[in-house]
Amino acid sequence: MSELKAYFATDRFATGIGIELLEVREGFARARLAIQESHLNAAKVVQGGVVFTLADYAFAACSNSHGTLALAIGVHISFLRAVRGGVLTAEAREESLSRALSTCQIRVTDEEGRLVALFNGTAFRKSDPVPAA
Amino acid sequence: MSELKAYFATDRFATGIGIELLEVREGFARARLAIQESHLNAAKVVQGGVVFTLADYAFAACSNSHGTLALAIGVHISFLRAVRGGVLTAEAREESLSRALSTCQIRVTDEEGRLVALFNGTAFRKSDPVPAA
Amino acid sequence: MSELKAYFATDRFATGIGIELLEVREGFARARLAIQESHLNAAKVVQGGVVFTLADYAFAACSNSHGTLALAIGVHISFLRAVRGGVLTAEAREESLSRALSTCQIRVTDEEGRLVALFNGTAFRKSDPVPAA
Amino acid sequence: MSELKAYFATDRFATGIGIELLEVREGFARARLAIQESHLNAAKVVQGGVVFTLADYAFAACSNSHGTLALAIGVHISFLRAVRGGVLTAEAREESLSRALSTCQIRVTDEEGRLVALFNGTAFRKSDPVPAA
Repeated sequence: MSELKAYFATDRFATGIGIELLEVREGFARARLAIQESHLNAAKVVQGGVVFTLADYAFAACSNSHGTLALAIGVHISFLRAVRGGVLTAEAREESLSRALSTCQIRVTDEEGRLVALFNGTAFRKSDPVPAA
Repeated sequence: MSELKAYFATDRFATGIGIELLEVREGFARARLAIQESHLNAAKVVQGGVVFTLADYAFAACSNSHGTLALAIGVHISFLRAVRGGVLTAEAREESLSRALSTCQIRVTDEEGRLVALFNGTAFRKSDPVPAA
Repeated sequence: MSELKAYFATDRFATGIGIELLEVREGFARARLAIQESHLNAAKVVQGGVVFTLADYAFAACSNSHGTLALAIGVHISFLRAVRGGVLTAEAREESLSRALSTCQIRVTDEEGRLVALFNGTAFRKSDPVPAA
Repeated sequence: MSELKAYFATDRFATGIGIELLEVREGFARARLAIQESHLNAAKVVQGGVVFTLADYAFAACSNSHGTLALAIGVHISFLRAVRGGVLTAEAREESLSRALSTCQIRVTDEEGRLVALFNGTAFRKSDPVPAA
């Protein structure tokens, strides 16, 4: 799995905003982000795009965790709690896997374990392997 | 509407990654982003979080366009076409408005007008006005 | 297209609750339902499942309109207006088509043309043709 | 809670197609449906609208379980496994509750406990109590 971590470390956008992939194994991934001022929106809460990107990064790692390249085709996200700072964690679990599709659920929580967002994503699995980093 | 544009210009995350709000009027908003290398993911295509943030920013402007503060509660996004560069445009239209809810659809297109993503969002309208920038 | 209409007429559930397929051509379909008392829920408004089924039926016809069997994999629906009676119409348009996926949007309206629900669905296209009725 | 069960028993559509509410308590509900031929679509599998209605019924019971009237505003459903018969169970859990919103997740499983559909719904809570049956 260290190759997968190395591959995802080449994601310029996710790593550029401070997201770190903590763990990836078959059907599971976990990522974290320490909130900075640069993550805030006009209302001074964490921008929805930041929460989405954190969850999406864990989703990408999870849906690619079998070594087959998978691309997100559709996502639903519920924003449940506004966040102003601290550390966010995204935990992805694969709920269903078929030859062509991987469906994962990602829970984003704050430091006190409260649910911040619920993310459900479907990825299309190509026949190619995940490339080397 | 120039106050609304000024307010959304204080969104540190969206503006920090290069997103620009082009237009906002009641029930409509348009934003754009010129893709840079910092927007790419490990597969060298534009990160889903970038496309989401662009659409979400147009959604925020559209759902707040009546001057009442509105917060995103749920979003569905379909990713329809991978993008490697160029300029993306997000156009938001309000499909439904009630006292408490605004439902908008955002179409993200590339320079040739091809649909890149389809974003449907619901925002909860609070009783507060959109604050001054 | 009359074979497609004949095929969808064998949908026991949709036709059993009164749904009628009015039109189907490549990338488009239209269905209708005259509301009856049997369609109401405990709050005496049309059950969400009825509105969903009407939209889903138009979606199935639209995503199968190229003659290739397509199965719904994910749907988002926004319920925008409660309905107590009258006739509902669902109009499906394909927003994106690739070898493996069809993404459609379905608008459900009442007799006055007001939007009742907005439905976005993705279908997976198998390599099989739509079977004969 | 027996009043809630009595209230939901007046849902003509859900009960008319054979759905039964098994259990409802604060933040939880469970419903079941024994599949019949009348539930099948043109492909001879259970119609998506049937699976949706089963999940939506459990969602309605769950989001109304605090005695405050709640109406579905948006739902995402992933269809994960085609079903041809047997008994389906929907289990709803509230993931988040605020003054105005209830967000629930509903898992639909077959008799062997395999996941058939994953349903995430948001309901708007009005200030009215759930009416007496």
